[in-house]
Amino acid sequence: MKVMLIILDGMGDRPCEELNGKTPLEAAYTPNMDYLSEKGINGIMDPIAPGIRAGSDTAHLSILGYDPYEVYTGRGPFEAAGEGLVLRPGDIAFRCNFSTVDENMNVIDRRAGRIKEGTHELAEVLNGMEIDGVKVIFKESVEHRAVLVLRGDGLSPYVSDADPHKLGSVYEVRALKSGAERTAEIVNEFVERSYATLNKHTVNMKRRENGLMPANIVLPRGAGMVPQMDSIEEKHGISTGAIAGVSIVKGVCRLAGMEVLDVKGARGTAESDFGAKIGAALDYLKNGDFVLVNIKAPDLFGHDGDPAGKKEIIEKIDLAMARLKEALDNTIIAVTADHSTPCDIMDHSGDPVPLLIAGKGVRTDDIRKFGERTAAEGGLCRIRGKDILNILLQLAGLSEKFGA
Amino acid sequence: MKVMLIILDGMGDRPCEELNGKTPLEAAYTPNMDYLSEKGINGIMDPIAPGIRAGSDTAHLSILGYDPYEVYTGRGPFEAAGEGLVLRPGDIAFRCNFSTVDENMNVIDRRAGRIKEGTHELAEVLNGMEIDGVKVIFKESVEHRAVLVLRGDGLSPYVSDADPHKLGSVYEVRALKSGAERTAEIVNEFVERSYATLNKHTVNMKRRENGLMPANIVLPRGAGMVPQMDSIEEKHGISTGAIAGVSIVKGVCRLAGMEVLDVKGARGTAESDFGAKIGAALDYLKNGDFVLVNIKAPDLFGHDGDPAGKKEIIEKIDLAMARLKEALDNTIIAVTADHSTPCDIMDHSGDPVPLLIAGKGVRTDDIRKFGERTAAEGGLCRIRGKDILNILLQLAGLSEKFGA
Repeated sequence: MKVMLIILDGMGDRPCEELNGKTPLEAAYTPNMDYLSEKGINGIMDPIAPGIRAGSDTAHLSILGYDPYEVYTGRGPFEAAGEGLVLRPGDIAFRCNFSTVDENMNVIDRRAGRIKEGTHELAEVLNGMEIDGVKVIFKESVEHRAVLVLRGDGLSPYVSDADPHKLGSVYEVRALKSGAERTAEIVNEFVERSYATLNKHTVNMKRRENGLMPANIVLPRGAGMVPQMDSIEEKHGISTGAIAGVSIVKGVCRLAGMEVLDVKGARGTAESDFGAKIGAALDYLKNGDFVLVNIKAPDLFGHDGDPAGKKEIIEKIDLAMARLKEALDNTIIAVTADHSTPCDIMDHSGDPVPLLIAGKGVRTDDIRKFGERTAAEGGLCRIRGKDILNILLQLAGLSEKFGA
Repeated sequence: MKVMLIILDGMGDRPCEELNGKTPLEAAYTPNMDYLSEKGINGIMDPIAPGIRAGSDTAHLSILGYDPYEVYTGRGPFEAAGEGLVLRPGDIAFRCNFSTVDENMNVIDRRAGRIKEGTHELAEVLNGMEIDGVKVIFKESVEHRAVLVLRGDGLSPYVSDADPHKLGSVYEVRALKSGAERTAEIVNEFVERSYATLNKHTVNMKRRENGLMPANIVLPRGAGMVPQMDSIEEKHGISTGAIAGVSIVKGVCRLAGMEVLDVKGARGTAESDFGAKIGAALDYLKNGDFVLVNIKAPDLFGHDGDPAGKKEIIEKIDLAMARLKEALDNTIIAVTADHSTPCDIMDHSGDPVPLLIAGKGVRTDDIRKFGERTAAEGGLCRIRGKDILNILLQLAGLSEKFGA
């Protein structure tokens, strides 16, 4: 038996006035999820713990069996791993923007005119430098985005952002805990050198000539230390794959030792090819044991405060699940979310998420429609994210007995 | 949005024969709690953990987000804080009785004739003394009650009681763990000195003249170390208030850094002015973020083994909740208990307590009547006391996201 865990990012919601008091999932026509719900068992899940407002990163960590309070110090490492950087435990990683500053170090465009070309050349001149014995690894990402990794002894993740998150003066990076002073100095030095190097770079000369904002500084944020994480394969003796459009989820899965699959059409947007992702997951399971599929779109509509849009995208995702019915004979299939993103609050909340598990041997219940409130009446009652992997693996006969 | 958490002390119960197999809450006519139940979401809660018979002190600690197994070593510190003593982490605190002993140190009245006057004068001569370099802080409380605090280095909370809890010889205080020997000696010395000083005190001379029992000794019990507790305000960045009639709950709230509000008519008895407490809570929330209201009365009827009385007092409390309906627009309201005090066992049990949460954005369920067994079918399923604060704060939009 194989296991497929489908995570509809931010799908959980609260009653929406626009949907006559239903949540987007409750209001949506979802015959395929309802089929799985009816054939399976339902419940609600606190991704981390009741009431905790989880991020996608911390929630996925928890769902994959890691304690986010132990391994998570900031978003940087997961973004960097998502971008394919090979990291070592102890590395300090940051998300960065290429930005535009004037000669007084005032940010006049946080995204450097949403620069699309030339960032590879700009990154090359910063990558590999050394500051106070610390190695700098720097790589461009999509558009104005980039990741920075500091590798060396005695570094701390507890430093503030250089990015002011608004227009105005570049922030001086500060130590947030004692012992982080040197790391803060190194980041400040990196920011200064990025300006000194990039401001006069030919890529930026040409941008100025063309009336474009120069990408003349790099502003790091979201510092975190790359954690020591035993892989799922090591812990459970199974092969694991992940399909996701967004870097942060790819990064969590990669640091969990999962094979991150490249799926054409997996974009992490509402235009993602959901069918391609489900298809790729089924393909992976021909040889692999466990596959996680993250579908980002519902979260985006939650953040936009768009209940009707969220309902529609859930219906579109449901369509892509039709072929899962045939897989039930040899696959334990779970559908859930990593957190709730209620349209009313346009951000992640601490409400539990609905969860269904279908497949051979599952104890069923009376629930026939997948939804936040129906699931709460199901046979799984209320569980935590950290328990889901164990539940799924044992249903698939993939886990060891503890004791005799 | 604001948060009001109403704790009906010891309200949880078991089926009572006298109430045709209903619990007092189930048997009670509670239109206002039923309204909140219908408009909200219901569940059951284990104040500490399933099956654990919580005290009011340990349960309130857990409900306020502290781990009682870490911070609780005895009742003393919470009584002392409830009496308004300013405590420091590491202080050892005791509850005490003024008692009456004969010349052979046999207790002949544990409550010194329920002395009502003169205890302040008696306390004054004990307060401030030093024993083996340890400072003694001593303060009278209501009637024969008092609190003792020992302040100094190397003290331990693991000492037995001097109070024999019955008539007969005063107990010699013993170390309950190695390392507590000196503390035990100091308490014994304090008890001896209290007799030497109080036996000849003019207050007691007059009491003897008037045929009253002299309050000629102080008998400490319930030793505990004042814990280091980060305040709720520090942890969550919110302002917090508490309304309670009984010292022990006031003390827990005070050590959690909450503002303990003085409410006229809050007595901690069946004669408390419940309406005044609810009104004061609503007033507090005009500026504050979170208020806890403890209503002691149901617990008293549980300890008395009086199901009909418990049912009636619950009905009386329910009446005082009528005005909460109007508050639902801008307040998350929760009603629960700190533990069950079943009339059949006349003491705290380890049964879970019912819980309802109402307010804007709450996912509702089908429950329309508040009760132990109806709540167990609700959408919250089963949670723990330590999670309730996180759940309420996130519903009110008062909590931070963990992760990105």
